[in-house]
Amino acid sequence: MKSGNEELKEGDYVWGITGWEDYSWNFDPHKLLTKIHITDDVPLSYYAGILGMPGLTAYVGWTEMGWAKQGEFVYVSSAAGGVGHLVGQFAKMLGCYVVGSASTNEKVHLLKTKLGFDDAFNYKEGDLRSNLNKYFPRGIDIYFDNVGGEMLDEVLKQMNINGRIVVCGMISQYNLSEPKGIQNLFSVITKRLSLRGFSEADYRNMYPEYAEWVVKKMHENKLVYVEEVIPGLENGASAFVGMFHGHNIGKRVVAVAKES
Amino acid sequence: MKSGNEELKEGDYVWGITGWEDYSWNFDPHKLLTKIHITDDVPLSYYAGILGMPGLTAYVGWTEMGWAKQGEFVYVSSAAGGVGHLVGQFAKMLGCYVVGSASTNEKVHLLKTKLGFDDAFNYKEGDLRSNLNKYFPRGIDIYFDNVGGEMLDEVLKQMNINGRIVVCGMISQYNLSEPKGIQNLFSVITKRLSLRGFSEADYRNMYPEYAEWVVKKMHENKLVYVEEVIPGLENGASAFVGMFHGHNIGKRVVAVAKES
Repeated sequence: MKSGNEELKEGDYVWGITGWEDYSWNFDPHKLLTKIHITDDVPLSYYAGILGMPGLTAYVGWTEMGWAKQGEFVYVSSAAGGVGHLVGQFAKMLGCYVVGSASTNEKVHLLKTKLGFDDAFNYKEGDLRSNLNKYFPRGIDIYFDNVGGEMLDEVLKQMNINGRIVVCGMISQYNLSEPKGIQNLFSVITKRLSLRGFSEADYRNMYPEYAEWVVKKMHENKLVYVEEVIPGLENGASAFVGMFHGHNIGKRVVAVAKES
Repeated sequence: MKSGNEELKEGDYVWGITGWEDYSWNFDPHKLLTKIHITDDVPLSYYAGILGMPGLTAYVGWTEMGWAKQGEFVYVSSAAGGVGHLVGQFAKMLGCYVVGSASTNEKVHLLKTKLGFDDAFNYKEGDLRSNLNKYFPRGIDIYFDNVGGEMLDEVLKQMNINGRIVVCGMISQYNLSEPKGIQNLFSVITKRLSLRGFSEADYRNMYPEYAEWVVKKMHENKLVYVEEVIPGLENGASAFVGMFHGHNIGKRVVAVAKES
């Protein structure tokens, strides 16, 4: 079958957004499909994670939106998720002080040990304000927001002057009939904050540079990628819903078929 | 009396934030006082407006925060206010399509005639959504926000992809016991928006360049400045409170004493 896209030949592997299906066909050839250059030591599943959309999201969000400087105080929510655990490590590479929050003590332990976060906390234990005060006694310079809602509202009060909020996700809000109202936006003025949203799809030109860099970092053991492969399309729905309950650790991938 | 600031000599005029008083003394010499270089044809009151904090606010907000391009659709709320009426004219100079909102038909008329806005509406007539749909059938690229609250929330839904919101003021919120919750921040992600707050105090180094430029524009009749001078410190409180009811047109200045 012909791809209709001159850059893709029969037999090529691609990554991109497809349906939940065993086979995908009848693509719009102008859809964002990125060719995979197979290398021996990277599993194909990585192209649904660190070498795909979530990885580029973390990279673009961190490098293009955060304007981070060495020594700044960085907070990542949903820090053990597919994007968050990469962002925290990118921030550490730059020399920032990085604290993450997650929904279980197991994840908090992972963040503080294997993933090298300076600190981490379980946001379900204690109230948000006390936790943020405790882990950021000198305030937050950069907040990488994956959750929105109540957390974003409280963080707005704890940001430092000229702070930056990278608005990457709002997982706390996706299943609400009415979004929570954010009351502390006046901090944007008093603290000269920026809030920026983005889509990695606008930065696909950065992908080759990113992919080369990130594979090198993994080979040098300077970056840990956490994925959780769930076999079988028939388990896709429960795997997806589980994410809203914080069941995933790292990037959750549903494997439709084994690599050939 | 000595100023304690080497750049200021006895008899100099300055602009800056002082108390509500006939005479100001005992200043922290490191406070932000900017020296006035008296010129013949600019009234001293202008240094409380177009040649002072509000003018530099409009200029910095527009030039540094909005990243505007020719032909973009710009919305200014509180457009007949001290900052808004300047921002709208700056946007027109760049070749943007500019619509302002204000609280009376008299102000709307002023915006559309003397101040050269492409269009303007009275936000108290009709509902916000219908007004924005009507005046921005192709969406909003830049929103210069002076009011916050319900207006900001509705505008978030009407912004275009890659839109920018310059968060300058939130006058609708200042006197509420509890701020209105903003529910449409998810648009920041879906539309890749930026929201940016700022303080002109961080950009005082731009003041000389700005002051020279803006005086030239006024002399060339390419910029109209609207001020309303209210004589007598005893009228200061009512003049101030009146602003929250939309009574001011342009910059409202309370004159403590006449120019000598």
